[in-house]
Amino acid sequence: MKKIEAIVRPEVFQELRESLVHIGISGLTVFEAAGCGNQKGKRGAFRGTTYELPLVSRIKVEMVTDDHKVDEIIEAIIEACGTGNVGDGKIFISQIDEVIRIRNGERGKEAVL
Amino acid sequence: MKKIEAIVRPEVFQELRESLVHIGISGLTVFEAAGCGNQKGKRGAFRGTTYELPLVSRIKVEMVTDDHKVDEIIEAIIEACGTGNVGDGKIFISQIDEVIRIRNGERGKEAVL
Amino acid sequence: MKKIEAIVRPEVFQELRESLVHIGISGLTVFEAAGCGNQKGKRGAFRGTTYELPLVSRIKVEMVTDDHKVDEIIEAIIEACGTGNVGDGKIFISQIDEVIRIRNGERGKEAVL
Ligand SMILES: Nc1ncnc2c1ncn2[C@@H]1O[C@H](COP(=O)(O)OP(=O)(O)OP(=O)(O)O)[C@@H](O)[C@H]1O
Ligand SMILES: Nc1ncnc2c1ncn2[C@@H]1O[C@H](COP(=O)(O)OP(=O)(O)OP(=O)(O)O)[C@@H](O)[C@H]1O
Ligand SMILES: Nc1ncnc2c1ncn2[C@@H]1O[C@H](COP(=O)(O)OP(=O)(O)OP(=O)(O)O)[C@@H](O)[C@H]1O
Ligand SMILES: [Mg+2]
Ligand SMILES: [Mg+2]
Ligand SMILES: [Mg+2]
Repeated sequence: MKKIEAIVRPEVFQELRESLVHIGISGLTVFEAAGCGNQKGKRGAFRGTTYELPLVSRIKVEMVTDDHKVDEIIEAIIEACGTGNVGDGKIFISQIDEVIRIRNGERGKEAVL
Repeated sequence: MKKIEAIVRPEVFQELRESLVHIGISGLTVFEAAGCGNQKGKRGAFRGTTYELPLVSRIKVEMVTDDHKVDEIIEAIIEACGTGNVGDGKIFISQIDEVIRIRNGERGKEAVL
Repeated sequence: MKKIEAIVRPEVFQELRESLVHIGISGLTVFEAAGCGNQKGKRGAFRGTTYELPLVSRIKVEMVTDDHKVDEIIEAIIEACGTGNVGDGKIFISQIDEVIRIRNGERGKEAVL
């Protein structure tokens, strides 16, 4: 199984959600975040403090999925979240060794669905 | 070392915390999250916006631990967080290559304790 | 590529940010968190509830980077975030299989920069 982490602009999240449901992905977890990419910036705020190095508001979407769905999900993220402007975000793919459904202890690919 | 990520209902968190301490696990990090599993839903809210596709409030608990403790931790999570109802959450297990204790630069299994 | 996760005290974050920029690391994502290490504690609060087992406010900084930068980043974190007191935090290193820049679909090491 793979974990797909997408760090995206908050304003594209609803469109991403709809695209993912469209390709059969309903299981996901979302986190509020702040981040910085390559942009040379001026100032920003996080937790009430002003930083010389700006942080912008981002959302991280985490999805654990079967290997064969990864490419389709990447395409859906690029389609829904890409504006062509700097700051569109990043996708990180990593290995997940085991998944367990807490309700019944079910493991593996069946637990992802 | 392994990372155990448990996405659970907020209301079971205190019981989980106590169970983990009971089996000797005190190091953990907790995040507020929102998520969706397999449920076919109606509406929900996240960051003040209403979504057709509902997100429910969840907590993610992250623990990095020695390999031999993983099964015991999974059992403790299922015991503390399983209600038998849909939406009880998921556990994801993955590999951690290195751990460093920032206080003294200590690495490896000793740094996890 | 590697993911570096650093769980640190909120008050050292700005110094960490500056140190990272100094060594050429500008891409990172930050999350508010709560956590507990080895300390034997009394009480704490999270989400408005009092817990017998205390949680303290922490920040998680996530950076995905090329393998050859990992050691330099670890040193910068220890330097910026280590006070020598218990509770300074932890660093976790793990493998990232693929990185995609959402703006243009670029992959691999070029997408990390
Ligand atoms: N190497 C990285 N590690 C962790 N998070 C990152 C990294 N690079 C970017 N991010 C996250 O992604 C968000 C968006 O980054 P961004 O798209 O600006 O990256 P970029 O490399 O500057 O690409 P672009 O040139 O398209 O702007 C950042 O605010 C940050 O949260
Ligand atoms: N594949 C997944 N990837 C990432 N997060 C997930 C995934 N599946 C579930 N989650 C997270 O776990 C939470 C609870 O999911 P849930 O227990 O409803 O999963 P489920 O597969 O529908 O299982 P059940 O049939 O027991 O309800 C979700 O709100 C979401 O935050
Ligand atoms: N094993 C772990 N898994 C996940 N998060 C951890 C773990 N250990 C510590 N943390 C996180 O790091 C934060 C700081 O931990 P802390 O530095 O107190 O660790 P420690 O092992 O007690 O080291 P020290 O002896 O230097 O205090 C915690 O509040 C928690 O968020
Ligand atoms: Mg950028
Ligand atoms: Mg469900
Ligand atoms: Mg401690």
